[in-house]
Amino acid sequence: MIVTLRKNTPQKEVEKLYKYLEEKNVQVNIIRGENFNVFGLVGDTTHLAERDILANEWVENVRRVAAPYKLANRMFHPEDTVVDVAGVKVGGNEKIVVIGGPCSVEGEEQITRIAEEVKECGADMLRGGAYKPRTSPYSFQGLGYEGILDLKAAREKTGLPVVSELMSADKIDEFEENVDLVQIGARNMQNFDLLKACGHMTKPVLLKRGMSSTIEDWIMSAEYIMASGNPNVILCERGIRTFETYTRNTMDLAVIPLIKEKTHLPIIIDPSHATGDYRLVEAVSLAAVAAGADGLIIEVHDHPSEAWSDGAQSLKPDRFEELIRKARRVAEAVGRTL
Amino acid sequence: MIVTLRKNTPQKEVEKLYKYLEEKNVQVNIIRGENFNVFGLVGDTTHLAERDILANEWVENVRRVAAPYKLANRMFHPEDTVVDVAGVKVGGNEKIVVIGGPCSVEGEEQITRIAEEVKECGADMLRGGAYKPRTSPYSFQGLGYEGILDLKAAREKTGLPVVSELMSADKIDEFEENVDLVQIGARNMQNFDLLKACGHMTKPVLLKRGMSSTIEDWIMSAEYIMASGNPNVILCERGIRTFETYTRNTMDLAVIPLIKEKTHLPIIIDPSHATGDYRLVEAVSLAAVAAGADGLIIEVHDHPSEAWSDGAQSLKPDRFEELIRKARRVAEAVGRTL
Amino acid sequence: MIVTLRKNTPQKEVEKLYKYLEEKNVQVNIIRGENFNVFGLVGDTTHLAERDILANEWVENVRRVAAPYKLANRMFHPEDTVVDVAGVKVGGNEKIVVIGGPCSVEGEEQITRIAEEVKECGADMLRGGAYKPRTSPYSFQGLGYEGILDLKAAREKTGLPVVSELMSADKIDEFEENVDLVQIGARNMQNFDLLKACGHMTKPVLLKRGMSSTIEDWIMSAEYIMASGNPNVILCERGIRTFETYTRNTMDLAVIPLIKEKTHLPIIIDPSHATGDYRLVEAVSLAAVAAGADGLIIEVHDHPSEAWSDGAQSLKPDRFEELIRKARRVAEAVGRTL
Amino acid sequence: MIVTLRKNTPQKEVEKLYKYLEEKNVQVNIIRGENFNVFGLVGDTTHLAERDILANEWVENVRRVAAPYKLANRMFHPEDTVVDVAGVKVGGNEKIVVIGGPCSVEGEEQITRIAEEVKECGADMLRGGAYKPRTSPYSFQGLGYEGILDLKAAREKTGLPVVSELMSADKIDEFEENVDLVQIGARNMQNFDLLKACGHMTKPVLLKRGMSSTIEDWIMSAEYIMASGNPNVILCERGIRTFETYTRNTMDLAVIPLIKEKTHLPIIIDPSHATGDYRLVEAVSLAAVAAGADGLIIEVHDHPSEAWSDGAQSLKPDRFEELIRKARRVAEAVGRTL
Repeated sequence: MIVTLRKNTPQKEVEKLYKYLEEKNVQVNIIRGENFNVFGLVGDTTHLAERDILANEWVENVRRVAAPYKLANRMFHPEDTVVDVAGVKVGGNEKIVVIGGPCSVEGEEQITRIAEEVKECGADMLRGGAYKPRTSPYSFQGLGYEGILDLKAAREKTGLPVVSELMSADKIDEFEENVDLVQIGARNMQNFDLLKACGHMTKPVLLKRGMSSTIEDWIMSAEYIMASGNPNVILCERGIRTFETYTRNTMDLAVIPLIKEKTHLPIIIDPSHATGDYRLVEAVSLAAVAAGADGLIIEVHDHPSEAWSDGAQSLKPDRFEELIRKARRVAEAVGRTL
Repeated sequence: MIVTLRKNTPQKEVEKLYKYLEEKNVQVNIIRGENFNVFGLVGDTTHLAERDILANEWVENVRRVAAPYKLANRMFHPEDTVVDVAGVKVGGNEKIVVIGGPCSVEGEEQITRIAEEVKECGADMLRGGAYKPRTSPYSFQGLGYEGILDLKAAREKTGLPVVSELMSADKIDEFEENVDLVQIGARNMQNFDLLKACGHMTKPVLLKRGMSSTIEDWIMSAEYIMASGNPNVILCERGIRTFETYTRNTMDLAVIPLIKEKTHLPIIIDPSHATGDYRLVEAVSLAAVAAGADGLIIEVHDHPSEAWSDGAQSLKPDRFEELIRKARRVAEAVGRTL
Repeated sequence: MIVTLRKNTPQKEVEKLYKYLEEKNVQVNIIRGENFNVFGLVGDTTHLAERDILANEWVENVRRVAAPYKLANRMFHPEDTVVDVAGVKVGGNEKIVVIGGPCSVEGEEQITRIAEEVKECGADMLRGGAYKPRTSPYSFQGLGYEGILDLKAAREKTGLPVVSELMSADKIDEFEENVDLVQIGARNMQNFDLLKACGHMTKPVLLKRGMSSTIEDWIMSAEYIMASGNPNVILCERGIRTFETYTRNTMDLAVIPLIKEKTHLPIIIDPSHATGDYRLVEAVSLAAVAAGADGLIIEVHDHPSEAWSDGAQSLKPDRFEELIRKARRVAEAVGRTL
Repeated sequence: MIVTLRKNTPQKEVEKLYKYLEEKNVQVNIIRGENFNVFGLVGDTTHLAERDILANEWVENVRRVAAPYKLANRMFHPEDTVVDVAGVKVGGNEKIVVIGGPCSVEGEEQITRIAEEVKECGADMLRGGAYKPRTSPYSFQGLGYEGILDLKAAREKTGLPVVSELMSADKIDEFEENVDLVQIGARNMQNFDLLKACGHMTKPVLLKRGMSSTIEDWIMSAEYIMASGNPNVILCERGIRTFETYTRNTMDLAVIPLIKEKTHLPIIIDPSHATGDYRLVEAVSLAAVAAGADGLIIEVHDHPSEAWSDGAQSLKPDRFEELIRKARRVAEAVGRTL
């Protein structure tokens, strides 16, 4: 960490700060410049917050050199983490996984029917929301526990592991028992109490990037889960919020090589939420596979115009099947399977 | 709501969609154009989601004309809501309130001492975090319940109502009993389960704007609380995330007249988080008062460089007092008191 | 175009606005609602500005239904435009083009040497900046006309068409005579005088997207060039500015299918500026090809650490060659050649 | 400037980079850490580009400590610059200036009439666009030279100095002769050739912030003008582009104290473009004055609904007069006059 002092900082204040930093268990080196003095802090700085040091009125700025995360850091864990979701492996050089299913579970019949369809198309897991984060209190809020049971029924019928979003820590037991991959949604990416609760689960966690989260914020949220005891985190990019209005969000695919460089965790892509438009899903999915994604999570509905939520970004099964067929060819072209 | 159909939509599909919309309890008008057909939906459209209609593949786009919120809507409630926080009135033409105090409660002695200082400077309420949302799991996470009790002690000593952030629904009773104004932080602005839980409280809620929330998203989150039964919501702008890096966030002061036009709720401003820099807090505070804010919430610490969090944006009491003195003059200039 | 009037607009004002709009040569339909009256404008609305109509104080909002562009609009020109750059075809189902070369021309020897290298790697065109838009007046500003002549020499030696950035209308003749593809940079995307000047050139134009330009703004800038007489426009996405700091910009690959849906123009991708980091260029390039890009423009330098500009995002020739080899496989996987 | 090397950089590479940096005329200090080596560069680093050093593959990151601007830098020029615009002083502790007038000059009669109105309301200068940067080639593009002559006529009638936007270097003589304050618009903020041309003018320049420009980019553009010979630059904030759609742009008022801290240049605010909505202009104007702005530039039109451009954000003279009356009171409250 590099701490730059303001011009003309009194010698007494330089010494005071030096002492303050030394007490933080880091080694402090001084560079004396014409206009500035600079401290270089060497050692483990993850427990130091830039803004706490900035609070000293003689500090001009503070720059972190080493990453603030440890458990997720590729530097300390060079090998890829492969997460096992009820037998389906995600990450490393494993097969690229495809997760398909409706935005919302609408009943046992619907979710089982769609589960069978996505399985036949080639999906490896089933997605379906039982608890739904909706912008409006007047929109459908999900079937709740009933939806979780419907998902379970669909799994029994098809053998597909199920992914569903957890919105509140008081449903932890329900999810621990019934869900194979616990999704934390973009809006809860910095719901730290929920992250800590996930850290105590035995089930793996799918952590979506927040709409306005930097990559560093996102990795820090993974670090929360890992530091609380659960090493099985899969990251999921779903687009960030920008000024562009032609798409629902802006998909940032450079995160794929970046996440692989900075961390050892698997990363999958959600082209449905990123674009918000079923017509754009295929192109973005193929791009994600070419860029090295470890998986795709795609909304599929057999009657999108009657879906209880997010029909606008849902593929019909035939388009989903075609997407998988094309994605397989792209996967092979980059030396992976799907 | 205006629904535009794609060019060359078959007549059969036009009729099908017409029927589908009519069943939603709105009146449907058709405009026939050369390249497009357009449906105008008249009546209460708050229960309709644009994206559900977009799911129909013949729909080109959907534009909402009427706001999606009702309870918060100025159109249906022309009079200003004045929220009573343990006797302190916020909103309408009431005195502009000033809330001061440290980012984190660091113990009974500290919070009581600072409470006395901010009271002397002219503050109307005391802020202090007991549960802290920190980006890093390795940063100080707050004193928890102990901190809540410390706040209570400070209130007993000074008479100042206390504001503190609620991060999890399982602490609802603790807050209902001990806290006068329940803050929902930016990161939890779309934690809908928490919003619903706040709707069942009798205490007023201070709802911070999310870092990447549109004004509409923010009002919809207020609507969640109100629709769950709690009409006492105060909105708080604390800056949004943009590409600018010289400030921590970008303060959007146009929200003040906008919120007053669109809603009947009080709005206060948090210049500490918006700027992240104590040197900028005064200018932004005076600006907020001039623009019509109903209050300010400002971080104050007597030893910022030793604060357990956010010292970089905390004012010392003497600067806080000076700010209040200046803000009073600006308030008078715009016909308010402070 | 849909014009919504404010609640309780007096009948006289409704009629006045009706007449005002009718005089604009569009057909005006009225929808009467409970809270709102709405006008639907039918016909060619490209000459109408939303904000001009918004100026009427009784207008609540104005929504455009038809796109504001005509010449670039796929609706009126269903077939793909293929742009011919000195014999190299760009767009449609043509071979995906690869443009390689240094950020800056540093002299005849340097540009000729690199031209030969990129040609051997498989590039179809040569890039090189002679006039450089630099944030700092103290940075190298390009060799100017000398650099243009160096590019010409490199073309003579290798046969590769050359691409270079035009920053000022007074250099139009120089570019018309010496450059094969005239680049308009992101910072000049809304330099409308320069766009109009390009409209009078016979050489094709490579129009980069502005850092904060919506897709619609970008297409409108293409429309400027086309409306001034030059139909040969190639669009180039180079990343937009967002809050993310790990990458130089955020690459938005959903623009590829979107641009192909909305317009008939070719689109190429610049992964070097989008990421700002040579280590990320390959993954993003492969993604772009998979998503349907018509070309790639990539910075290549044989000694990046000594490059006069942008070495941080430049590939060495061996990595560039490997990228092309991999990109060929991805192109085949999606039914194209490269 | 702080240069951090990658972990395990070979000693030979450390030495090579050390030598490379030393040759750049800066003093180089080394800090050796456990995981990283760090170079601290001391001296004048304005001629060094971070990204050029980043091009070395052994460099992990580069952080600038000293600002990259010199002439605009408060550190080297502690006193406020006061710019003289045909006798009207801007900056320092001078009277806060108010610039009023229409978006577009629509003819001599119109601009003279409005000039008289804004003068009577209390404006110090007249604004009016003769060359208009319009997103659409089908929108009114301004009266051009005729408009400049109309402005001149209005100045002769009223004595108000005139401000108008320069879009192209080939109009420099026209502006030098006829315009008192030369505006560079947001879209041309990084049109570096135009900035350099302005550097050769004797007239002062009003430099608007680009829609996606950081504060540092903006100051660097001022530095371009100053380094080319013209020290009379007034900065103008007009809102930045964000995800928010209720306002045209997001006004960032924290720039006022920031610009005053970092530079010695005057700063004025454009609430018309920042909000895009005449109903929001007054509140934002008062806020700007309270925050310490040196001036306001406001669009005024006597018949906004018939204005040839931007009527939606134009005030009628009576509202403009009321705004000035209120702004005067706020100015007094913060110790200034207006």
